[in-house]
Amino acid sequence: MRSFVLLLTASALTLSVLATPQSPHPQRLPLRWGILAYPTFVGLDAFAPIEILNIVRMLTPNMTIAIIAETMDPVPSHALTDIGVPGTYLRPTHTIYDNIPLDVLLVPGGGPESAVQFNNTRLINYVKRTYPSLQHILSTCTGAQFLAKAGILDGKKATTSKFSWKDIIKTGPRVPCARWVRDGNIWTSSGVTSGFDLTNAFVEQGMRNVTLANLATNIIEYETHEDPSWDPFCKIWNVTAA
Amino acid sequence: MRSFVLLLTASALTLSVLATPQSPHPQRLPLRWGILAYPTFVGLDAFAPIEILNIVRMLTPNMTIAIIAETMDPVPSHALTDIGVPGTYLRPTHTIYDNIPLDVLLVPGGGPESAVQFNNTRLINYVKRTYPSLQHILSTCTGAQFLAKAGILDGKKATTSKFSWKDIIKTGPRVPCARWVRDGNIWTSSGVTSGFDLTNAFVEQGMRNVTLANLATNIIEYETHEDPSWDPFCKIWNVTAA
Repeated sequence: MRSFVLLLTASALTLSVLATPQSPHPQRLPLRWGILAYPTFVGLDAFAPIEILNIVRMLTPNMTIAIIAETMDPVPSHALTDIGVPGTYLRPTHTIYDNIPLDVLLVPGGGPESAVQFNNTRLINYVKRTYPSLQHILSTCTGAQFLAKAGILDGKKATTSKFSWKDIIKTGPRVPCARWVRDGNIWTSSGVTSGFDLTNAFVEQGMRNVTLANLATNIIEYETHEDPSWDPFCKIWNVTAA
Repeated sequence: MRSFVLLLTASALTLSVLATPQSPHPQRLPLRWGILAYPTFVGLDAFAPIEILNIVRMLTPNMTIAIIAETMDPVPSHALTDIGVPGTYLRPTHTIYDNIPLDVLLVPGGGPESAVQFNNTRLINYVKRTYPSLQHILSTCTGAQFLAKAGILDGKKATTSKFSWKDIIKTGPRVPCARWVRDGNIWTSSGVTSGFDLTNAFVEQGMRNVTLANLATNIIEYETHEDPSWDPFCKIWNVTAA
């Protein structure tokens, strides 16, 4: 692990300079991240972005990652173990009632047993009231449903998981065949592992740091899809925008 | 989510038949999974396989997934939140002292702060004493280190994370340029996200169910690399077997 630590340390010096905006009047870099957590979330919808963000955070001064939930109790994903209990968890750092200031909010999707959470007005209202103060909002997989119900996707281009295509993103131009879609400050991505490419694109464009995005995805040995229209699963699942 | 549930239900009928071995004297299907958990594990090293296994488990009668740790306390990954505490967790179902019978043990890697765990003789001894009763052992990323220290990799082909190449797998033919390597019943994979391809290959070959492997990776919209020699990160990180 020595090489890992040495490289990160050396790179931090370079990258902290690279991360400094060059514009004379730059918009503040979006460094204050929040990840919305709720029971039955799809683990990887959150864990894939977190693995990239964890590396980015190590090399980015003042970057913070908050886990935001209804309560401070550990939040179980939808994955079950052999004794019928969830095996993977997010640990909240704040509740939705703390209203901590954020630059970016990431909303993960939920598993097939998430109907209750998809209609949880406390979560939907949190997304609705927080959005105006954000620089960017991101969703992975069926997380787009919370954005849709909060009215954020009205008239906007968006995508979601192939499996849930007919049930969510009821308004606005749907984009069924896309790994991820950016419409202004709204970034939605397709099924589960699309969160890797969404996060990579956000670090490149939203945080303006291509070098750091490349370093993070190379460390986790993920082959990034840089083209948002790359989506072989559109054909596999035969989805249409209708 | 209706389509998700319907498809899974319909597929279960088909797949429970497909999963039945055709040989008159088949080896028992490896259905009893264990995932070793220890503090500072790399989240995705476990979470990526778990996301695939969770789908496989839903459609495979009698398949079980245990999370095995030193104690029953929640096990934090290496990912940190803004208040300096881990944000992602595994919840144990058993301890290493329970010695529950397993067909497969998956050993995830650890983050850059995992030196204490890599030298944790209680974990190493658990791997050593459990291996003879397993059908298969798998490691992702630096998890290979536990197999090496338990003596399981002596004289065997194996791979691991590019970052940690020089520090682990000290004996046996190293395979630096591989997404994953199978040598008999020992399956080792490369950095972090290689766990997707390792798990996919195991469901196809070890569990003899190509249909289910394809279904699971298509649901999570992961582009599988079927060729174990696919490894662009070998060149990127300039590793050699020497």
